[in-house]
Amino acid sequence: MAEIMHRVGIGCRAQDIYPLLTTDEGLSRWWTTDTRGAGEVGSIIQFRFDGAGPDFEVIELVQDRRVVWRHSGEMPPAWMGTEISFDLEQTEKQTFINFSHYNWKQADAFLAHCSSKWGVFMMSLKSSIETGRGQPFPDDVHIDYDE
Amino acid sequence: MAEIMHRVGIGCRAQDIYPLLTTDEGLSRWWTTDTRGAGEVGSIIQFRFDGAGPDFEVIELVQDRRVVWRHSGEMPPAWMGTEISFDLEQTEKQTFINFSHYNWKQADAFLAHCSSKWGVFMMSLKSSIETGRGQPFPDDVHIDYDE
Repeated sequence: MAEIMHRVGIGCRAQDIYPLLTTDEGLSRWWTTDTRGAGEVGSIIQFRFDGAGPDFEVIELVQDRRVVWRHSGEMPPAWMGTEISFDLEQTEKQTFINFSHYNWKQADAFLAHCSSKWGVFMMSLKSSIETGRGQPFPDDVHIDYDE
Repeated sequence: MAEIMHRVGIGCRAQDIYPLLTTDEGLSRWWTTDTRGAGEVGSIIQFRFDGAGPDFEVIELVQDRRVVWRHSGEMPPAWMGTEISFDLEQTEKQTFINFSHYNWKQADAFLAHCSSKWGVFMMSLKSSIETGRGQPFPDDVHIDYDE
């Protein structure tokens, strides 16, 4: 199984990041402004990009420490069976987000695209906290001319 | 073995990217300004960041198509045994760079850090061509407060 990993340090406490991973308003600040359904374990979050996009079920929540989602539905097909985890690691001068999108069937061009794009969104999450302004869709940083 | 992948599309032809992967001057525009030794297959490229940094041996070159490096020396230890490939894929409206840093022994926090940082440098390569201004070290985008 293939995996995308990222690790970014944000100048804040873990408790400042956790709401950005667990509420519609928080997720809207860095991934896509059209986010609905975030809540407790079992809730299904709908992320939309011009009307289409993936759903994820919240399968684990540890306050200020860890968030895990399991892909739900059929969009995009390559994400079926995958999961995403966010692990927060607070140190004296920053909190690291350890991101993983795992259980991919293939390490192909689409995984490579998503790896670069997740990197852009991790930086959007970082700047949404540090500068008050993230770059969620539809203002996201483009990594190619197909998106 | 673990792997980092990225895929970025640049608004140019493959021949515009190839020199940025194969010459000191080109590599200095997006990764680190202190780059020496780039050349034909067998040459050892020294990438330096404040005096220290990795060496890579050029092990494959296909003009305007493919570049492969094998890590050389002992810095950083986790990169020993790894290789990096850049595959260029020209389409009508852009050229994709398919990047892979593979043969990692462990998918750990340092791999995750490097994945995010390679993403930043792929965007630096993209902007060095599209805007004429990349962000190589020491003007690189920081992803945490340890670097």
